Amino acid sequence: MKSYRKELWFNIPNRRGFKNITPDVEVALRESGIQEGLTLVSAMHITASVFINDDESGLHQDYDKWLEKLAPHEPVNQYRHNATGEDNADAHMKRQIMGREVVVAITEGRLDFGPWEQIFYGEFDGRRRKRVLIKIIGE
Amino acid sequence: MKSYRKELWFNIPNRRGFKNITPDVEVALRESGIQEGLTLVSAMHITASVFINDDESGLHQDYDKWLEKLAPHEPVNQYRHNATGEDNADAHMKRQIMGREVVVAITEGRLDFGPWEQIFYGEFDGRRRKRVLIKIIGE
Amino acid sequence: MKSYRKELWFNIPNRRGFKNITPDVEVALRESGIQEGLTLVSAMHITASVFINDDESGLHQDYDKWLEKLAPHEPVNQYRHNATGEDNADAHMKRQIMGREVVVAITEGRLDFGPWEQIFYGEFDGRRRKRVLIKIIGE
Repeated sequence: MKSYRKELWFNIPNRRGFKNITPDVEVALRESGIQEGLTLVSAMHITASVFINDDESGLHQDYDKWLEKLAPHEPVNQYRHNATGEDNADAHMKRQIMGREVVVAITEGRLDFGPWEQIFYGEFDGRRRKRVLIKIIGE
Repeated sequence: MKSYRKELWFNIPNRRGFKNITPDVEVALRESGIQEGLTLVSAMHITASVFINDDESGLHQDYDKWLEKLAPHEPVNQYRHNATGEDNADAHMKRQIMGREVVVAITEGRLDFGPWEQIFYGEFDGRRRKRVLIKIIGE
Repeated sequence: MKSYRKELWFNIPNRRGFKNITPDVEVALRESGIQEGLTLVSAMHITASVFINDDESGLHQDYDKWLEKLAPHEPVNQYRHNATGEDNADAHMKRQIMGREVVVAITEGRLDFGPWEQIFYGEFDGRRRKRVLIKIIGE
């Protein structure tokens, strides 16, 4: 069994944003030399997500509005977590809806995807450097 | 390390529906010959889910009503994604709540499940052929 | 490829509660002797979650209040599932938002975590013995 590890670093300029990281995962997969196996792609921070969906900007605006409705940022004092001096309790909730991680099959050296699957980094408390972990195992 | 790949195809006759695919995953596991490892079961389409829960029809009706409340289908013009000509923005949201994939342990050649765990395909934009991917790795 | 399996048992004294199980997973990882690979940590019951987030009690209170808002326990007769004699339909929904499982990378014999990542068992229908499965594969 072979394994390969790589970190991706991001600094999303706004509080919230989505970034297509599929090309970065494909580069890591080529570097790994692994042909058959699984790759984990996970947010290393607990106010961010990694998820798979569509690369369509209207949908991303819909997600942002929808997540704000389900877990509003303001008023910040509605959350006990923010009494610690943080203002990001809502980001911890948005991340649970969108998910921490994805596991993707690797077949014949490629991400084994359906027609529209793309991997995104979802930031809910940005404006600072944060990381995603790629771990690939297989042969 | 061995690996095994199989696709399952579905055509759910309504916009939304749930289908127990545990028997299909068990067949794939037997075909693989793998005794110890992990299996990924993932929706290859971004308006569908694979999740693990209870095979109880009342609960499935509750899920459908609940997901409609959290991410209503109508009015379709409340979503920017639908300005592209689609009417399925809500399906992209419902899928995020229910999840894209499950990873199941394989122990002594069986799905290593608790007493009520069953694997479901969750369709949120049906009436067309769509796929689930099974990828098993182990020994 | 090596694999290792362990069950953790809990009896949360209230209907809902969160428990940090990171130390238990670290013990299992040491027992496994695996240096590079993946670990699956999953709830074996369908009214409970395993998720990764912050070990901060204010946040856990926020989660509890937020999940109650998205999927209220009462009135219990709002859910068809509860017509079976259960009163836990809400727990099946809360578990979908928080997730069934996490997959964590193992690197140099350790859980490969970002600075604040901790693994939690989330109970939504407690006051009885329930289980979490740890399955580790790698070398």
